[in-house]
Parts: sequence; C-alpha cells; structure tokens
Amino acid sequence: MVDFTKMTPYEVRSLIRKEEFNQQTTGVALDYAQANLVILPKEEALEFLMFAQRNPKPCPILEITDPGNPEPKYTAPGADIRTDLPLYRIYRDGVLIDEVRNINNYWKEDLVGFLLGCSYTFESALMHAGIPVRNIEDKHNTPMYITNIRCKPAGRFSGPLVVGMRPIPSHQVIKAIEVTSRFSGAHGAPVHLGDPSKIGIKNINHVDFGEASTIKPREVPVFWACGVTPQAVAIEASLPFMITHSPGHMFITDIPG
Amino acid sequence: MVDFTKMTPYEVRSLIRKEEFNQQTTGVALDYAQANLVILPKEEALEFLMFAQRNPKPCPILEITDPGNPEPKYTAPGADIRTDLPLYRIYRDGVLIDEVRNINNYWKEDLVGFLLGCSYTFESALMHAGIPVRNIEDKHNTPMYITNIRCKPAGRFSGPLVVGMRPIPSHQVIKAIEVTSRFSGAHGAPVHLGDPSKIGIKNINHVDFGEASTIKPREVPVFWACGVTPQAVAIEASLPFMITHSPGHMFITDIPG
Repeated sequence: MVDFTKMTPYEVRSLIRKEEFNQQTTGVALDYAQANLVILPKEEALEFLMFAQRNPKPCPILEITDPGNPEPKYTAPGADIRTDLPLYRIYRDGVLIDEVRNINNYWKEDLVGFLLGCSYTFESALMHAGIPVRNIEDKHNTPMYITNIRCKPAGRFSGPLVVGMRPIPSHQVIKAIEVTSRFSGAHGAPVHLGDPSKIGIKNINHVDFGEASTIKPREVPVFWACGVTPQAVAIEASLPFMITHSPGHMFITDIPG
Repeated sequence: MVDFTKMTPYEVRSLIRKEEFNQQTTGVALDYAQANLVILPKEEALEFLMFAQRNPKPCPILEITDPGNPEPKYTAPGADIRTDLPLYRIYRDGVLIDEVRNINNYWKEDLVGFLLGCSYTFESALMHAGIPVRNIEDKHNTPMYITNIRCKPAGRFSGPLVVGMRPIPSHQVIKAIEVTSRFSGAHGAPVHLGDPSKIGIKNINHVDFGEASTIKPREVPVFWACGVTPQAVAIEASLPFMITHSPGHMFITDIPG
C-alpha cells in the first residue's frame, strides 16, 4: 500500500494531475503546508484581497496567482491550480453548479487564484509540541461554529467569523497559544478560549460545520479562526463566477509545514 | 513652544488638516505608528497589492481604503487621507508634476489608498530596548541603499529591494533582530547583516537615499527592508496617475507604536 504521508508535494500533485489520486488530502505529504483555494475573476479580486487584508486571521494569504496564469510560482513552482487539486467546486451567482476533477474547461484569462493557509499546518505543530488534537485522535473533521464576531467587510464581502474548536488540556493552553502564534500563515493564535457563549456559540455540541469533539474533564475549549470563513463569505456574496476546492481536497504546497 | 511629541494622533492630524502643521513628522506623536502613503486608481490597485503580498518585508500593508472613500477607518477612524498628511506628491506617467498641502483637487471616486508600515515604529522599539539608533542620535535621515536583491514582481511592478542601514553594537545584534522580528507591520527582522558587498552595496559611504551613518568600532552594519521600495517601484512603473506622501511627511495612525 502506498504511503501518501511520506510523499513529496510534487509526487502527490503529479498523481492528482493524472487523476490517480482523488481522495481528501488530510495527512498527505505530512510535512508540507496545505492551502484552501478560491479563484475569482480579476474584477472581484481586489475586493476579496481587501477583505483578506482586513481579516488576516481567517484569511492568511499564502499566494495570489497572476491573472490568467495558473502557476503558483512562489509556493509550488511548476504546479497548476487547474489540475493539481483532487476536487473543485464551481459556483455561478452564488450557486454550486458543478463539482469536477479539473477546471481546464472553466479556466479563463482573467482568473486570479488565492491560496489561503489551512489549519492542518498548525495542528501538526501542536502535536509535535506534545499537545493532543482531538479531531485527529478521533479521526473526524474539526468542529466549526459561526460566531457573533463580525469580519471587517470589504465591498461585497462581509459576514461572521467562523471558528474551529479544539479541546486543550488546561495545563497546555498557554503552550498551544504560544505554538500557534508562530503560524501567522495558518490562522495564528486563537481568537477565544473558554466560555463558548461569549462568542455567540449557544451549544458546543451543535456544530455549524464538521463534527463535534468530546471535551474531557480538565480540558478547555480553544477557538481558532477558520479558513471556512473566506469561502463562506465569498459564496454569500453571490458573485457571478467563482471556483473553490471541495472541502478537504486541498492544494499541497512546497512550503515546509 | 508646542510639544508635538506628546500630542495624540488626532490632535496632530487636526492641525495638519487646518494646514497649521506642515513639517516632517519625525518624532511627532511619538507613541503611535506612522505610515507611508501610496494612492492609485482601482485599475492599478490589484497589481500593487499583489506586489505587496509577495514582498511583505518592504511593503507591510497597514490598511487599504475602500475605492473612493478617503477614510482609513481601521487605523485612524475619522481621518481623511486627502487632507491629513502635511505634504503630498502628484505623479502623472511616472513624472512628479506637483507637490501640495492637500489633494482635494486631485481626488477621484476610483482612488484607493495604501498605508504602509514605516521604520519609525521599530526604531522606537529598538531604543526602548536600549539599542542605539545612529540616525536618530545624529539627527539625520537613515542611510538607504539599492541592493542586488530583486523584489518578486507583480505585473508592472518590479525592481530592486531598497534597504535602510543601522550600525548596531555587535553584542546587541541578536537583541536588535529579536526586537524588530516582532514588528511584521514595520519591516520585521533585518534582511542582512555584516558585509555590505554581499547584497550589492559597493561603498557604504555612498548612499542612494538619505545620509551616511558613521559605523564605529565593534559595530555591525544591519540592513532592514525599507518603505522606499514600494514607492520607488511604483514610480518606476510609470503609471498614468499616482499620489504619494512627500518624503518624511507621513500619515500618523491611531495604532500604538
């Protein structure tokens, strides 16, 4: 059986390009940063970039591709964002119209790709620091919640901050903050810890996305900004045209994680 | 005599708006971050923002104003970038055509303002840490050099990295790096230390901008990315229309420095 965890990003992207790998990318090429993808026409790109600049915690930008050029030449030279992700979603007027293995047929000369940092990066740093990550231990998707914290709007882009929760043993909370603070390219330090109701979460067992995590005795719920935010906001804006990765099917960069 | 160092940003900006303060802003409202200003038509703004994202050390973006809206609502609510800087430069086709006290007559609905971090912020942090800053001690402008390090280009924007040099006592070099690393909004950690020829500087006494600093025995020249870079690159791009602050006449934000 092939061990995808030890593959290089180039090897995995090559398999994906040939459509020989079409699963989710969790745990693949473990030592490298993965990225969320949003592709927009140049017309909408400035406003989206302004939204990201104003909301760096949920929207850490790793790279912006030149209009019409599908190569992310700084984070993965030689790669192609039209073919190197396992699954894409196509939206028209805010409505999901297609889910495809490559976007060659949808590509146009005015499209700009945004690669945004992903929490997989800091989760592996937490584990290296000896801090358990419940959603990895229990093999489920991170519990995510829509909060009452508003993002700073930019043009058509506005909406609430979405957070991911990880239960952290109370004696390791400071360490978890210290470790993730170093990852400004992957959501950075948490946005809240403790009482979920303070950020508008009524019931911690009712997630808005993903699956609930068990909070054990002596554990504190810690909330990090989540990369679902920019995608949710972009979908909400009902733009004429947008492409994103499909949930869990990320772009694997050459950046050591 | 009025002590401008202790004024609040709001007080200084109000005087500037009334054109009752028209000097350089060095040492004014000392505890607050100052910013470089570049104003471009929306048409050019995306490319400039991509350049900044690719070159965060010389181009730390503090705020981008909404097209047509002169209020930097996050870094200085209530302020107006058309009137609240002491002196502006107007460029057409890359040529300086005017230097003015306000830009009301040049303002248009498609203009976007970029506020970029400035080294004044980290110089004050260096001094608080007990590290001498030669250009402040000797009351002259930072020595600046065009290096052989190329910025990552974006569309029409490309050019060499410009650096500012500060001589640091050798036993304080690590501390200086540690302190400035924390200021990612103001050029962050240095880009080089020691031998100037390694980054293409032939003669440390021949500056490209500013004035030379004396390097004393047991001092190491340390080079930080400089906010002149994006302005130089924008001028070089010969855009149809651009407004910048005049050198030394910065925007004073409400951000504690």
